Amino acid sequence: MSVTVSNYTCVRMRAVDLIRQKRDGGALSESGIRAFVAGVTDGSWPDAQIAALLMAIVLKGMTIDEAVILTDAMVRSGETLKWKFGATPVDKHSTGGVGDKTSLVLAPLAAACGAFVPMMSGRGLGHTGGTLDKLESIPGFQTRLSGEEMRRVLGETQCVMVGQTEEIAPADRRLYALRDVTGTVESIPLICASILSKKIAEGIGALVLDVKVGRGAFMKTRNDARTLAEWLTGIAERHGVRTEALLTSMNVPLGRAVGNSNEVIEAIETLKGRGPKDLEDLSVRLAARMLVLCGIARDGDDAERRVRWAIASGAGVEKFRAIIQAQGGDPSVVEDYRRLPAALHREPWPATRAGFVTKLDAELIGRAAMALGAGRDRVDGVINHAVGIDVEAVVGAEVQAGEPVLTLACDDPQRLAAARVVLAEAVEIEDRAAPPSPRLLETIDERRVRPQPRGNVRVQPPPAKGVR
Amino acid sequence: MSVTVSNYTCVRMRAVDLIRQKRDGGALSESGIRAFVAGVTDGSWPDAQIAALLMAIVLKGMTIDEAVILTDAMVRSGETLKWKFGATPVDKHSTGGVGDKTSLVLAPLAAACGAFVPMMSGRGLGHTGGTLDKLESIPGFQTRLSGEEMRRVLGETQCVMVGQTEEIAPADRRLYALRDVTGTVESIPLICASILSKKIAEGIGALVLDVKVGRGAFMKTRNDARTLAEWLTGIAERHGVRTEALLTSMNVPLGRAVGNSNEVIEAIETLKGRGPKDLEDLSVRLAARMLVLCGIARDGDDAERRVRWAIASGAGVEKFRAIIQAQGGDPSVVEDYRRLPAALHREPWPATRAGFVTKLDAELIGRAAMALGAGRDRVDGVINHAVGIDVEAVVGAEVQAGEPVLTLACDDPQRLAAARVVLAEAVEIEDRAAPPSPRLLETIDERRVRPQPRGNVRVQPPPAKGVR
Repeated sequence: MSVTVSNYTCVRMRAVDLIRQKRDGGALSESGIRAFVAGVTDGSWPDAQIAALLMAIVLKGMTIDEAVILTDAMVRSGETLKWKFGATPVDKHSTGGVGDKTSLVLAPLAAACGAFVPMMSGRGLGHTGGTLDKLESIPGFQTRLSGEEMRRVLGETQCVMVGQTEEIAPADRRLYALRDVTGTVESIPLICASILSKKIAEGIGALVLDVKVGRGAFMKTRNDARTLAEWLTGIAERHGVRTEALLTSMNVPLGRAVGNSNEVIEAIETLKGRGPKDLEDLSVRLAARMLVLCGIARDGDDAERRVRWAIASGAGVEKFRAIIQAQGGDPSVVEDYRRLPAALHREPWPATRAGFVTKLDAELIGRAAMALGAGRDRVDGVINHAVGIDVEAVVGAEVQAGEPVLTLACDDPQRLAAARVVLAEAVEIEDRAAPPSPRLLETIDERRVRPQPRGNVRVQPPPAKGVR
Repeated sequence: MSVTVSNYTCVRMRAVDLIRQKRDGGALSESGIRAFVAGVTDGSWPDAQIAALLMAIVLKGMTIDEAVILTDAMVRSGETLKWKFGATPVDKHSTGGVGDKTSLVLAPLAAACGAFVPMMSGRGLGHTGGTLDKLESIPGFQTRLSGEEMRRVLGETQCVMVGQTEEIAPADRRLYALRDVTGTVESIPLICASILSKKIAEGIGALVLDVKVGRGAFMKTRNDARTLAEWLTGIAERHGVRTEALLTSMNVPLGRAVGNSNEVIEAIETLKGRGPKDLEDLSVRLAARMLVLCGIARDGDDAERRVRWAIASGAGVEKFRAIIQAQGGDPSVVEDYRRLPAALHREPWPATRAGFVTKLDAELIGRAAMALGAGRDRVDGVINHAVGIDVEAVVGAEVQAGEPVLTLACDDPQRLAAARVVLAEAVEIEDRAAPPSPRLLETIDERRVRPQPRGNVRVQPPPAKGVR
């Protein structure tokens, strides 16, 4: 519309034109997407324009080609790392669940089997927990390391467990904060670009995705989860990252511990071969797929044997001890759980009747743990590592009236009262046990990927800088 | 999602919940819409959340009930005026055209016939002009008056022509600025709420709408224009304002002058009975409908006779002189057009061939006038009242090759060059004249209003404050 072409007008019209194009259902060009991400990164796009385009993307969608370019532009918005060790760096990402401490189990196991695991994780938000929060239960454990420190820890242990640095995908940080407050989280292309831009910038060559489905997950139906898994896998593959996704059930908390220090204890127990079977099986399967994708194991069976040996031999728990030590934590927590923060009170949540536990609602238990202080409802919220919820009677277990189904570890009577309100509908007990339902639902690998519409953009790896 | 209920969280969750509700295609509740407008007005909703909701409204629509409530909430975001004169206050609003100076003609005519016209107008943006800019061509003319000054001018002349004050519908000011940069202008409910909130807050009891259709108009098709007219009429009626909409063609500039001071001259000529027929006929028709709606005339024929008498008798031009004087302007411009700003150069735009003019593209001529400096491409742009474009050969006229079709009045060679680029496709000359097309396409009044879905919310008039 502009005739007198000032620079200001050009930039402004460009943003409005892109927004209108997406609003009217068009596909954005590569230069348009890169201009958007540049404007997000350098601050030249105001929040309002970003939010309007995000909402248009949520409602009008993106093609797989647009999502591939968006991901690449977000990768290039910051630093990209490159690792000069022998093996293909491999990582795992979960879309978020309740009681999901698999990272704490599988990263040491995979490293103990020879994998190279530069793991960057996030913090919890809402009813889902975060790996960094759990690790920070360990006295002294540092999750913010410089590039040099990361390289040292990786050299010593083949594994490092840190948060994303400020330099990794800065466009994602601004977009994520805006999406959180503008109702624009629920978009498969935006979710994929957010997850994968950070993983690709980490410099990994292989990635295992744990896409959660069900009551406690972001994706409530198996179809939606499968679509997300296919898009994630398809986009990652086109960035040259070997990727596989496991669809796993998240109706019930994973394992028995929901919180932070209690989840660390459960992870260590699992590394010692004494963990809950569902948690052990899923951690072993994810670690095994990591070994296959990074080329250490011949096949799934070979990989599982190696991972189970790492548990049985104690190599896995020793690796975790080494990682804790290398990252400044107190390694003696591995033997002495009393060194982890503990809550003042433990309060039983009793069975209201005799029968079989048929429901332990993952979302409500996650929200109750958040109410106790184990999680945060705002990005900048503070959490209490000591509190949480332990499952005493898992789904399928028989209980008598008054026996504890859950135990609430708490420090604050008001928070306990709030958690009780949330838990009111969380547990169901019936006369008959429900048939057991599997955790692992299906696996999506490159051969199964059929995102619609089928795209054909391939992305060159960005020039690497940072840690070498 | 929030359990630990802080005030901050409540407010934030509320905004996100509203955005998600509209994103998912739901209708917003009355309290939700009022909370949104309150957040816009008091600043508690950040730009990003407003923009996200606006985009969701553009893409998911609103019911007529939602639009009625949105309009009412925007009226109540600021001051509402009430006039204690005898007659029903009446105003006119145009959706924006090229060469549209009808307000300058019809307001004095209607006032000369006894109507009470507290007219609040806007400024031009893009290729469409604005009444305030045109009036400000007149040396000394003040368009920013206090409530007290407005009352004095109205007492003296029964008419005042001013801009909206800061106190009128402040929510609209913030929303309009955001819509302009976020691609969220094109929404019938948002357009209706923006136009009508300001008109209702002015304290009028009757309103004539001139909804433009065609190349130079916001609405490109007659169906879209009719839908807008029906919504506008339906919403205004439910706020107790007697309303009628005329659909008029805007493929060709209205009259012969496009600019500012040249449009003032053309308006005065029309008041003197010497104006272009299309401009005179439309101005008379709009003024006549104002007289009918505010109860002065029995019917359309009676009203037209009165308005034409106001031209023939000179009462209309004398009323305009009185308004100019009352608002601080130089009334002698009515006789002496040399007192208006004039451009340094006048440059012909010649016919490239002999034949009949079949096209004078309103949008391109409007954009060329903007390029010359007569309009602005940004809300805060500065305009030059002296420059503009005059049509020398109207559509249907026969021209010889080299004879001027347009004259460009300009001050700056660079701007002239930019205008020439825009005009390249604006004029067409063919062997045969096209059949003449009418300006007035149809009339939408209360009996014809069928907005879908049919709503049933009625709004109480807000408590009046301000000028009495």
